Amino acid sequence: MNKIIYADNSATTAVSEKAAAAMMPYFREHFGNPSAIYGYGQEAKKAIEDARRKAAKSIGALNNELFFTSGGTESDNWAIYGVCESKAKKGNHIISTAIEHTAVLRTLEKLQTQGFDITLLEPDVYGQITEEQLEKNIRPDTILISIMTANNVVGTILPIKKLCGVAHKHGVTFHTDAVQAVGHIPINVRDLGIDLLSMSAHKFHGPKGAGGLFAKLQAAPPPYLTGGGQEKGYRSGTENVPGIVGMAAAIEEATEKLSDNMKKITAYRDKLIEHICTIPGTYLTGDPVHRLPGLASFVFEGIKESVFLINRLNDAGICASSGSACSASSKEAPHVLTALGYDKKCARSALRISLSEFNTEEEIDILIHKITYIVAELRHEK
Amino acid sequence: MNKIIYADNSATTAVSEKAAAAMMPYFREHFGNPSAIYGYGQEAKKAIEDARRKAAKSIGALNNELFFTSGGTESDNWAIYGVCESKAKKGNHIISTAIEHTAVLRTLEKLQTQGFDITLLEPDVYGQITEEQLEKNIRPDTILISIMTANNVVGTILPIKKLCGVAHKHGVTFHTDAVQAVGHIPINVRDLGIDLLSMSAHKFHGPKGAGGLFAKLQAAPPPYLTGGGQEKGYRSGTENVPGIVGMAAAIEEATEKLSDNMKKITAYRDKLIEHICTIPGTYLTGDPVHRLPGLASFVFEGIKESVFLINRLNDAGICASSGSACSASSKEAPHVLTALGYDKKCARSALRISLSEFNTEEEIDILIHKITYIVAELRHEK
Repeated sequence: MNKIIYADNSATTAVSEKAAAAMMPYFREHFGNPSAIYGYGQEAKKAIEDARRKAAKSIGALNNELFFTSGGTESDNWAIYGVCESKAKKGNHIISTAIEHTAVLRTLEKLQTQGFDITLLEPDVYGQITEEQLEKNIRPDTILISIMTANNVVGTILPIKKLCGVAHKHGVTFHTDAVQAVGHIPINVRDLGIDLLSMSAHKFHGPKGAGGLFAKLQAAPPPYLTGGGQEKGYRSGTENVPGIVGMAAAIEEATEKLSDNMKKITAYRDKLIEHICTIPGTYLTGDPVHRLPGLASFVFEGIKESVFLINRLNDAGICASSGSACSASSKEAPHVLTALGYDKKCARSALRISLSEFNTEEEIDILIHKITYIVAELRHEK
Repeated sequence: MNKIIYADNSATTAVSEKAAAAMMPYFREHFGNPSAIYGYGQEAKKAIEDARRKAAKSIGALNNELFFTSGGTESDNWAIYGVCESKAKKGNHIISTAIEHTAVLRTLEKLQTQGFDITLLEPDVYGQITEEQLEKNIRPDTILISIMTANNVVGTILPIKKLCGVAHKHGVTFHTDAVQAVGHIPINVRDLGIDLLSMSAHKFHGPKGAGGLFAKLQAAPPPYLTGGGQEKGYRSGTENVPGIVGMAAAIEEATEKLSDNMKKITAYRDKLIEHICTIPGTYLTGDPVHRLPGLASFVFEGIKESVFLINRLNDAGICASSGSACSASSKEAPHVLTALGYDKKCARSALRISLSEFNTEEEIDILIHKITYIVAELRHEK
C-alpha cells in the first residue's frame, strides 16, 4: 500500500508518540485499581490526579473542575441530561443551535420526547450565531444554553464568550461542546466564563475512549453513570487509567505546541482554500475568518454525492470526508450545511479536509492536485 | 521495590500480553474512525466487527447481540435505565438483591427517587437467592429482575439459569451483572436464557475503559448515550477501537484457557482457604461450593478494621482488599457481608484475596504465611 495522506483529523487523530508512550506503563505494569488503598492502587490514583492537573491547566480550569469520561458524547450527554435533571423544577426550555454535533442534537430530541421545549437557533450562512439572536430567544423558563465552540463540518468558531455573557445575564447555565476546539485553538474556561465544557481526547492526538467534562466549581451536574462513586461520586466506573494518562499527555503537548501548530496548519489550510477555490463552481463553506486552523470545507457544483468524491480520493490514497464522521456513510445532506442555507443538492457535494501537524507541505500540494483533478473527472463523467 | 504479590484480581487485572499486543496497532497505525467510508476507516470498522465476533462467540451470543460500552458500570446503567424507560408503561417494580455491585444498587436508588419500586432480595448466609424467594416477590407490575452472576465480595456464584427461568415464567426481563463471572467460569447466554448481561474487560485481563452489554436479539434497551449512532444506533460515541480489540483478545484468550485456569486457580484458592481457616476465629465468607475459582474471602475475630490488615499486607508487598475496590477506602462495613447476616463489627474485618493465572504456588505459600502472621500480630497489638 502506498503512503496514505490522512486529511480527516476532525473525525479522529493518530495518538501522538508522547501520548502513546505515556499510556504504555498503565496496561501491564502499573495496572492497579485507583480505588484500592494499597500502594499499587495509589500509584494509579496518583497518575490520574497528575493527569487531571495537566488537563485542567491546559484549559485554565481548577483540578476539581475536570471530570474524566469515556469521550465527547458521554460528556455532552452528561452535561445536558444532568442540567435538565437538576433544573427541571425551574423550567423546561433549552436553547441550542441547528449546527450542533448529533451528540447534542439527538440528546435534545430525546429530551423533547420527555416534555422539554427545544429552540434551535439558525445560524447565518457562515455558521455564526449572534448575541442578539440568542438574547431574543431566552425565556424565563430557559434552563440551559448549549452552543458548540467550533463546528465540526465547516470549522466556524463561534463567539462563545459573548454568547455565554448573554446567558449569564439571564442566569442561564451555559454548556459548550468544545470537542473540535480543545487542543486546536486557545481555550480558557475562565476567560470564556462557561459553566460546562465537553472535550474528547481522540480529537487532539489522545486515545479514543477518553474525554472530559469541565464543570465550574460546585456546578457539576448530577452523575449520569451511577455506581462505585469514582470521580468524587460524579462519574462511576473504574477509571480508564491509560486513557486518562494519554489524554492528559496529549492535551499538554497540544497546548505547548499550540501557537506553532496554529501558524503552520493555518498556512496549509489557507493554501488549500486558495487553490481549491480556483476550481470553477467551488465554494468555501463556513466562516472565512473565524475558522479552525486545520479545517477547509467546500461544496462543488456538478458533484452529485460527496461519496463519489471521497471514494475517488480514497483510491488516490487520501482520507477525507463529507463533514461528519458519524454521518459519513449516510446519503443525507449534512444537516449543518442545510442549516447554513445551502440547498440539499449543494450540501450533498460537501468535502471536508481537516489537517494536523503531521501533514506536510508536499501533502497539501498533492491534495490540491488530486482534488482538482477528481472534481473535473467527476463532472466530466456526468 | 520488591516484587509485589498481586492478589486483588477481582478489583482489576493486568492486561495480558496477547491483549496488549492486539491493541497496539490501533493507537498510531490503524487509527482511522470506524464510521469513515474510506478504506482506512473501514479497516478500523473491520477490527471492531472481528472483535465483536470473538467476544460474542466467547459468551455464546450472536454478533448482533453484543454492544461495546466503556465498561461494566455503563453496561449496568444502560441495561437498567433502558429497561425502565422502555417498560415504564407496563409497571414500575424492579427486583434485585441486596448484594449487587453499587453500579446496580446506586442506579436502583436513583430510579427509586423517580418513582420506581425496588425490592432487594436478602440472600442466605452463603449469598444465595432461591427460585422460591424470587417467585414470591414477582408482581404483575414487575418489569425487571437484575441479579448478579457472581458476587464480587464473597465470590458466590448464583443459580442464574434457574432464577431467569422464574423471571421468564412471569414474562419479566432478566438482566445479570456478570462482571466477575465472564472469563472466570463458563458463561453461555443461550444456556442461561438471560435477556441482558453486563461484562467488563479489565476483570479478565483486558483493558480498563472497555466493556460490553449482551442484549438478546431485538431486545436491546433504548440507547443510554445518544449521538452519532454508532453500534447500530444503540451506543453513540466514537468507538474505542484499541479497547474493543483488546477486550476481544482477552476474552478469547480467557475462554481458550478457561478449563486449565479454573483447575489451577481453584487449587490455589482451596489451598489458601484450607490454611487460612486454620487460624482460630477465622471464617470463610460466601458459598463454600458454588464460588468463583479465584476468590477467597474471610472475616477474622479480633480484627477491628480491614484497613489495618490491608495496610500491613501492603507493607509486606501484597495487594489485597476488603471486598470491593469501589468502597475500599471507606470504613463502612461491606454491604454484602451485612446482607449475608454478619454483624457490622465482623463485616469490618473482611479480607478478599482474588487470584489469577499469573499467581504462583510460591505466592500462595507466602500469602498463607503473611496473612497468618499479620492476623496474629494485629490481634496481639489490641
